[in-house]
Amino acid sequence: MSSTSLTLDAEALYGALRDGVRRLLADRPDAALVGIWSGGAWLAARLQADLQLAGEAGVITSTLHRDDFAERGLSAGAGNTKLPFEIDGRHVVLIDDVLFTGRTIRAVLNELYDFGRPASVSLAVLVDRGGRELPIQPSFTAARVTLAPQQRLALAQGEGGRFAFAVENTSA
Amino acid sequence: MSSTSLTLDAEALYGALRDGVRRLLADRPDAALVGIWSGGAWLAARLQADLQLAGEAGVITSTLHRDDFAERGLSAGAGNTKLPFEIDGRHVVLIDDVLFTGRTIRAVLNELYDFGRPASVSLAVLVDRGGRELPIQPSFTAARVTLAPQQRLALAQGEGGRFAFAVENTSA
Repeated sequence: MSSTSLTLDAEALYGALRDGVRRLLADRPDAALVGIWSGGAWLAARLQADLQLAGEAGVITSTLHRDDFAERGLSAGAGNTKLPFEIDGRHVVLIDDVLFTGRTIRAVLNELYDFGRPASVSLAVLVDRGGRELPIQPSFTAARVTLAPQQRLALAQGEGGRFAFAVENTSA
Repeated sequence: MSSTSLTLDAEALYGALRDGVRRLLADRPDAALVGIWSGGAWLAARLQADLQLAGEAGVITSTLHRDDFAERGLSAGAGNTKLPFEIDGRHVVLIDDVLFTGRTIRAVLNELYDFGRPASVSLAVLVDRGGRELPIQPSFTAARVTLAPQQRLALAQGEGGRFAFAVENTSA
């Protein structure tokens, strides 16, 4: 596996995501941000601060509900779901860095439902790389890219918490 | 509650759905049709015949996975899931009559996963009435309509199995 940089300006895309989420929240000022671990959680924490929302953003992990849980198991440092507010009856905006097959989102919805029945769940992502395998679509996407199937795209945090994208070429 | 007819030509929309599903299947000729009980199941059975697909379409019900199961419980004649083929590794095209909040689709995905891990699930619907409460979108929609929240739209079968839409005004 080798890592290489892609010419996607994660900081510029973050600005577009922030504006998109601000518009989503204009209709639902009481909505809660929940970031999908790990990249989405970083984004949600920064959005929570930049949009001057009260309290903390939630963090959610898909691990326990993934359909390939049997193959992948629990990886070290997979993060834990932490939802410091009531989910029941709440409007939730899920935040993720990269949307691909949609399987993570399905798993995360089930994880969320373990905590209550949200009034609504919308999804805002930094990058949509296509390749959907489930009928899931975001309300807001900052960018769309096409990648080879064996390429893995993920958000990384650089100096001073600045965002960058990392592309991994897997052997799969 | 009163029933009234809406000027939506279900038979014409069915023709559009059939063409849309034919195109979806052109990429994935081995995909299985699964209709969501009840309107989607009627549609899937007719599509299976009209598109000259081998075997029977599947039927799926969301009842056991619904997030309002506690309130609604099991209604009489809710139908049973019947999937006369392997789901594991299969491309599945879910068929439904009316897409609204997306909660039924979430429940149906979980029901499907009880039977195996599909290679992909796409969704084709006759009518999208908007009002989504989950980040779910179809691959194909024959029509989009806007209705008052208290109106319920559902497919009905008339003489000779011809489709028509029924709109109910609920007191909710």
